[in-house]
Amino acid sequence: MYDVNAIRRDFPILSREVNGKPLVYLDNGASAQKPQVVIDAITKGYAEEYANVHRGLHYLSNLATEKYEGVRGIIARFLGVKDEEEIVYTTGTTMGINLVAYGWAMPNLEPGDEIVLSVMEHHANIVPWHFLRERQGAVIKWVDVDSTGWLDPQKVIDAIGPRTKLVAVTHCSNVLGSIVDVRAICDGARAKGVPVLVDGSQAAVHMPVNVAEIGCDFYAVTGHKLYGPSASGAIWISRKRMDEMRPFMGGGDMIREVTRDSVTYNDPPMKFEAGTPGIVQQIGLGVALEYMMGLGMTNIAAHEASLRDYARARLDGLNWVQVQGTTRDKAAIFSFTLDGAGHAHDISTILDKRGVAVRAGQHCAGPLMDHLGLNATCRASFGLYNTTEEVDVLVDALELAHELLG
Amino acid sequence: MYDVNAIRRDFPILSREVNGKPLVYLDNGASAQKPQVVIDAITKGYAEEYANVHRGLHYLSNLATEKYEGVRGIIARFLGVKDEEEIVYTTGTTMGINLVAYGWAMPNLEPGDEIVLSVMEHHANIVPWHFLRERQGAVIKWVDVDSTGWLDPQKVIDAIGPRTKLVAVTHCSNVLGSIVDVRAICDGARAKGVPVLVDGSQAAVHMPVNVAEIGCDFYAVTGHKLYGPSASGAIWISRKRMDEMRPFMGGGDMIREVTRDSVTYNDPPMKFEAGTPGIVQQIGLGVALEYMMGLGMTNIAAHEASLRDYARARLDGLNWVQVQGTTRDKAAIFSFTLDGAGHAHDISTILDKRGVAVRAGQHCAGPLMDHLGLNATCRASFGLYNTTEEVDVLVDALELAHELLG
Repeated sequence: MYDVNAIRRDFPILSREVNGKPLVYLDNGASAQKPQVVIDAITKGYAEEYANVHRGLHYLSNLATEKYEGVRGIIARFLGVKDEEEIVYTTGTTMGINLVAYGWAMPNLEPGDEIVLSVMEHHANIVPWHFLRERQGAVIKWVDVDSTGWLDPQKVIDAIGPRTKLVAVTHCSNVLGSIVDVRAICDGARAKGVPVLVDGSQAAVHMPVNVAEIGCDFYAVTGHKLYGPSASGAIWISRKRMDEMRPFMGGGDMIREVTRDSVTYNDPPMKFEAGTPGIVQQIGLGVALEYMMGLGMTNIAAHEASLRDYARARLDGLNWVQVQGTTRDKAAIFSFTLDGAGHAHDISTILDKRGVAVRAGQHCAGPLMDHLGLNATCRASFGLYNTTEEVDVLVDALELAHELLG
Repeated sequence: MYDVNAIRRDFPILSREVNGKPLVYLDNGASAQKPQVVIDAITKGYAEEYANVHRGLHYLSNLATEKYEGVRGIIARFLGVKDEEEIVYTTGTTMGINLVAYGWAMPNLEPGDEIVLSVMEHHANIVPWHFLRERQGAVIKWVDVDSTGWLDPQKVIDAIGPRTKLVAVTHCSNVLGSIVDVRAICDGARAKGVPVLVDGSQAAVHMPVNVAEIGCDFYAVTGHKLYGPSASGAIWISRKRMDEMRPFMGGGDMIREVTRDSVTYNDPPMKFEAGTPGIVQQIGLGVALEYMMGLGMTNIAAHEASLRDYARARLDGLNWVQVQGTTRDKAAIFSFTLDGAGHAHDISTILDKRGVAVRAGQHCAGPLMDHLGLNATCRASFGLYNTTEEVDVLVDALELAHELLG
């Protein structure tokens, strides 16, 4: 039994008001709120159990190390990974994808080699590949989505040519909510011997993920969207690809030995984790993932599917609202424009006066915006604590915006 | 009036016990404990005021952005920087130095170009330069310290040749505590037209820093040593060097426009800050720096100088203890070995039983260890909340270790 009202009480911020109205937080695509257990873990981490990790032999350092390293197994379980040493800690998906770009792609790609992307990618999964284009002559091949926002996996597979060295694709669009059949893409890419990086920033928040079933090579997630602390995160990298990678950042912990004339590197995952990490953040991320798994990822997905269906029906009833992304299989993420509203920012400002937090802009997805022929959209993105009543508040606020701007 | 006992009450962890003894935390060189105001700021950040920054137009996003961006001015004030847009947020010194290595040095150094380092550098200020050696044929030139651990600035200046493109030097050794006359080094390097990166990880914790007076080009600090959250930090980069840099990590926020075929970048500092940052951590860092400046950096330095003098006198009284680093002008950081103690780890384990947290090992300083002819040392490193009574507890515990191991 998924008791959303009980769940809401776990998140202290949800009981606050904004502009004199109860907060209706529909900006989960940008970042999610944190349950009290996560906040408590952070407080305890600093107030009672703090020390640097790995290098100490004193009690607090050992305690912090044990808790910090214990999160690797939690993330592995969350992503369906058997070997927790394939989990590399990051500060989020941006760092995870840059790690792959600098550590795997840059030493392995020659001028003219190709990277296949979908047009739905977030800038975090575009700009690192533009670096390879600018700096070493890599070629980016783009695969469009159809008019509903659906990405045909066969089109991605067909885009793989003899010079293709990597497919990098989102598991769920942060703008349209479209779920991508990454398993089919991986099947096709594997048959052609091409590795696949999956940007799991959005997908891992909304549904169960099992990277072994997907069959990808890299799967990146970001902690702050997973109800965890800001600057927490991880990327799963298959052993095979880890072995092909050089280190990214240099510093403490990632080395075996440093002399004046030489350096040797630690084994993965430490090889890719330089310097003092986000100790307390990662501990908090572990608590957040345990919280989600405690609710059950299938239950969260079912709850959000019902929110999605309800929101879709209500928004479909407003014939002056244009929702972008209408695939059946999508996350509860709605990007839209309004007839007569000059700019999406005007809409979000009016919604904010009603306590409704949505995002307005490009959503870090320039190529998709170009594809849609839009400068900006408003985006309402739902999380595990949202309710159908909040959909109603959103619709009421949209009606006000329509009245004022129309 | 510096009331250390009142200050200690600001740090909740300092009232805990370890192994049945009051915690004597002398591992500040690895990471510092956090005052309650920092913990409270983090709690409030998550429980009442959390949202993603920069991209929103709703109340919480604007609030979080204002607080997060406000920290840039605090860091600027802390470092004596006039233009807060020269402050780049990082997750710590390791990331800061890697940003300089990838963003400034890699595009600007040719094979055979030289980087001058002192032998006292931390791996964070060595391994990124080894990357340049391994990947593009840069040459590292090492400058030794004398037998007291003093780095002669003239020796650094003399090491600068026609092929030298960068001097990278610590402001304070994390092993020996030696303070480096970075101002003299910068004067000499500037006369030869060579930029200087200063690793301020340790120095900025213990004394007032003014980068304008130092005259360097890059100054990196790390938040978790500055009594702030883990994975917080910043690097100051002069406008001139910023203009010579390409971006490091790619993703959201650091771009101006992204299309299928092109990318243009945001102005600094955003150009160097990709993706969702450590929002709450940076807010916490701002509170930590305000806390330090509230106590007064000169007062902190004076308190720690008296701790240093007391600890030096007490340790000098133990003729079976060898302290490494005996310069007059040093921070309260003591690395030592004991006659007859097989390994530094054995000492730290015994100290831990008395509640005394010290570090044992290489301290991420392989070349310095080679220079000293040691495999490992024990290190007691003091912070703003330590007391002379704690020095006495350390000495008592060392006497026990000597008895057991000697």
